[in-house]
Amino acid sequence: MNTYRDIFKWGDKRETPIDSGTFKIIKEKFGYAEPDLQVKHLFGNQEVKLGSQCQLEKSIIKKLAEIVGSENIKDDDFSRASHAHGKFYAELLKLRKGEILSPPDLVIYPRSEEDIIQILEVCNINKIAITPVGGRSSVTCGVETPNKGISLDLTKHLNKVLEVNTINSTSTVQSGMFGPAFENYLNNFGEGFTCGHFPQSFEYSTVGGWVAAKGAGQASTGYGKIEHMVLSLKVITPSGIIETKTYPASAQGWDLHPIFIGSEGTLGVITRVTMKIHKHKPENTKYASFIFKNFDSAVNAMRIAMQSGIGLPHLFRISDPEESEIAFKSKNFDNTFADKFLNLLGYKSGNRCLMFVAVDGSKRYVNQVIKSIKEITKTQGAFFIGAGPTKKWLEQQYSSAYLRDPLMDLGIMTDTLETAVMWDNLIPLWNAVRNYLKSRKKTVVMVHISHVYENGANLYFTFLSPMQKGNELNDYHEYHKGIIETIQTHKGSLSHHHGVGKTLAPWMEKEIGSEALKLMQAIKNQLDPNGIMNPGNTLGLKP
Amino acid sequence: MNTYRDIFKWGDKRETPIDSGTFKIIKEKFGYAEPDLQVKHLFGNQEVKLGSQCQLEKSIIKKLAEIVGSENIKDDDFSRASHAHGKFYAELLKLRKGEILSPPDLVIYPRSEEDIIQILEVCNINKIAITPVGGRSSVTCGVETPNKGISLDLTKHLNKVLEVNTINSTSTVQSGMFGPAFENYLNNFGEGFTCGHFPQSFEYSTVGGWVAAKGAGQASTGYGKIEHMVLSLKVITPSGIIETKTYPASAQGWDLHPIFIGSEGTLGVITRVTMKIHKHKPENTKYASFIFKNFDSAVNAMRIAMQSGIGLPHLFRISDPEESEIAFKSKNFDNTFADKFLNLLGYKSGNRCLMFVAVDGSKRYVNQVIKSIKEITKTQGAFFIGAGPTKKWLEQQYSSAYLRDPLMDLGIMTDTLETAVMWDNLIPLWNAVRNYLKSRKKTVVMVHISHVYENGANLYFTFLSPMQKGNELNDYHEYHKGIIETIQTHKGSLSHHHGVGKTLAPWMEKEIGSEALKLMQAIKNQLDPNGIMNPGNTLGLKP
Repeated sequence: MNTYRDIFKWGDKRETPIDSGTFKIIKEKFGYAEPDLQVKHLFGNQEVKLGSQCQLEKSIIKKLAEIVGSENIKDDDFSRASHAHGKFYAELLKLRKGEILSPPDLVIYPRSEEDIIQILEVCNINKIAITPVGGRSSVTCGVETPNKGISLDLTKHLNKVLEVNTINSTSTVQSGMFGPAFENYLNNFGEGFTCGHFPQSFEYSTVGGWVAAKGAGQASTGYGKIEHMVLSLKVITPSGIIETKTYPASAQGWDLHPIFIGSEGTLGVITRVTMKIHKHKPENTKYASFIFKNFDSAVNAMRIAMQSGIGLPHLFRISDPEESEIAFKSKNFDNTFADKFLNLLGYKSGNRCLMFVAVDGSKRYVNQVIKSIKEITKTQGAFFIGAGPTKKWLEQQYSSAYLRDPLMDLGIMTDTLETAVMWDNLIPLWNAVRNYLKSRKKTVVMVHISHVYENGANLYFTFLSPMQKGNELNDYHEYHKGIIETIQTHKGSLSHHHGVGKTLAPWMEKEIGSEALKLMQAIKNQLDPNGIMNPGNTLGLKP
Repeated sequence: MNTYRDIFKWGDKRETPIDSGTFKIIKEKFGYAEPDLQVKHLFGNQEVKLGSQCQLEKSIIKKLAEIVGSENIKDDDFSRASHAHGKFYAELLKLRKGEILSPPDLVIYPRSEEDIIQILEVCNINKIAITPVGGRSSVTCGVETPNKGISLDLTKHLNKVLEVNTINSTSTVQSGMFGPAFENYLNNFGEGFTCGHFPQSFEYSTVGGWVAAKGAGQASTGYGKIEHMVLSLKVITPSGIIETKTYPASAQGWDLHPIFIGSEGTLGVITRVTMKIHKHKPENTKYASFIFKNFDSAVNAMRIAMQSGIGLPHLFRISDPEESEIAFKSKNFDNTFADKFLNLLGYKSGNRCLMFVAVDGSKRYVNQVIKSIKEITKTQGAFFIGAGPTKKWLEQQYSSAYLRDPLMDLGIMTDTLETAVMWDNLIPLWNAVRNYLKSRKKTVVMVHISHVYENGANLYFTFLSPMQKGNELNDYHEYHKGIIETIQTHKGSLSHHHGVGKTLAPWMEKEIGSEALKLMQAIKNQLDPNGIMNPGNTLGLKP
């Protein structure tokens, strides 16, 4: 039996259990008692049944089947339901309730770029919506299908590495390839390479999704965001094919490929990408972890490190006091000897902050960066706590997100929002968003900085709060709206790496201005004149 | 008396004399005798006199004068003539001959962004061409005014630093500010900053020109090209104003400011830019110079250094064997003891190549990078020759270009072309273009690599060859066309940092494809529906 739970929860059959430390936190913060921990709220284990069938004309379905082969077209309830939504909290609530109002008519798995060209032709003539999808890990309703039509799933066939060029240090890869498969391929190619892109969704996201949604990996401080990694790409649009050439840099008019990086399926289907890759030398990587007395001094150390010409760490991360406290608590650190010792030294629980650092590269480079960061952190009063905590954090860098499902089972609202901000606005923004989030009673707010630049950084907010049972969706939407507005008022970007999708679209005009949005619309109209590509106000575009 | 020479030659009254070493080379390579060295071919010291007057209606001129004040509008022959052309070799020939066929009707110096908005309104209604200009150092006919109209010169008033933010490490600067003024301002602000952008045109180019033409500085390997430095910008277009917000990074749909970086005045007037800046610590900078036995091993060393995770040098440069030979010769190095010693060691004249390295940053970083580069170059058989040659080269990094004028006085065609290429195509492209250039008799071809990336590098070609006197322009155009075609056939980009302008426009469609050019045109049409911004096929756009 295929259930809604099979759709929304992370992983195949994986269920991440909540550890004892986290249970303790839930009890303490939310006043949960033992019976509350047995609840299975909106568990979603009912069988998937859609109210409506595929509405496309028989003749069109026949044409599409002739293109891709009938084995690559699915119209069963489970296929359509599982392609109706991504992983945004509000989408998860709908899935848990079994409320799928607008599933795609068909899921199509194209076998080749040629298939995609033909599918786009058919859909363009017949004005059928197409939503290109990879791992469907979007947390912004990026892959939701409000206009139904076709969910074009690239993961089944367009999932191969086309070339690794060891001289140029590049790889050309099809967009439907998942992160682990790509990274594994590179690690084992020749002397070993890495793509350097490890978003938290890594295990369930594809190269095409990274590019379309303009993601960032956990090692982005060293390797850059995806837009710093893409050298060229091929995109099939309803108007024609655009394929950029691969150069290390150029000055032949304005670059066009930045238009497609972050286009979120609204302009066409990105089918292949040529990316920078790097030598994979995990044996050279060094780690360092620090505790600071407060968030200010941790942020200062980070900023100084980024602006002192010492080179770049790859992973560079601070947890704010509440996130640090939760991290310690979940490891049952409270009242241990080490805890008391840290408090005695002035690294007081509730104020202290954790910093994690990892540096890749040549041995000499790695040593130099680590040594420099140690010196800089020392000037800001940090306490060096060795390599261990960073390594431990890395072990669970993907799986910590999977806690979301068991937490929601317990009736706990849990979501993440993120923004980018210049250094001088970082602390005010952090304060403002925290204050807003804390205006809701019984809310845990954990914040970290995980993508760092010379000129600023991101802020990543994770919050947990008991759901208003029976009013889960409205309650969330109201709260969520206030977060976005607080971010926007306090000079944070609408997104640093989650993208915009349909969720943040209503704020786009305010964010970029009406002339800029008109320009985006003109680009959309040129490439997709019939508005078939990921419609439904994605990015604030029409339709 | 204002002459054509006052327009075309570099600098105010500066005349760079040819040194004895270079005279020797000219004699040897071109068979010039003493009398040939006294020639003043197309010297251009006749008074500037245009055949035509400003053709704009009186009422329009009056309106424009009301906007900016009559003191900021010039219609005299010298002002118009000096704004009719940039510094492309073919333009210089025309200026030397006193053939200015299409000068702008007026030169206007707007005082403010408000002035620019109003000027664009008047010109948009009346379909009058506007060419925004800074230092007019374009070598691609970027500022040429084939449709006459207005040359909008930003250098007189819009030339100030609006903000230096020492926390964010950014500066907001008006686009008409010249390089030296900006750098000097930054050097002297607070603890001292640098913009890190030092194109060869530095002394005669503006921040706006850097951005509009997508330039690269001599230290780009460390600091990046201009597109890596711009965090946000403001552009006034005929359709409205687009001002991007300043974030360290973001994911709110596709980035729009890359559309304006490299737009070469075709979309609007870039009025201000917020750029990354960096700590200025010249006392930390270290230099290293090497000699390699041949070009291949020098290129290999460079590539390995860029791909080994050792951090980045800021200046990173190789001269190919012929450029290295000329460099040695011009210093009268031939047959010295050192020359003989190098030949004896296997660094043979005619094969050997020079490499220059400079690294900025913290002392420890700088030492680490220099040490690593020394090790890598050693594996490729390089001979370390100390810091001196790199420092010497830096002393003349701008002025070497000013030799162009005295060389042209001697009837020598001299021009530079540049391209970017992936590592695996670099040597074949270098060979192909050299072979083509050498198909012309008595031609000196000097090539260097000066902007280096993990995945490839630029190639910069400088050639000298006696002019066909009386047929200078056609002779050049024929030769030039062949160079571009050879570059394009051998997988070099149309430009790495000179831009496209009107000179390279005919090759744009082949370079980027017809769908991509249509997309560019759609963007142009949205922002400049009447086609008034830098018209004349700039970037291959209409009109």
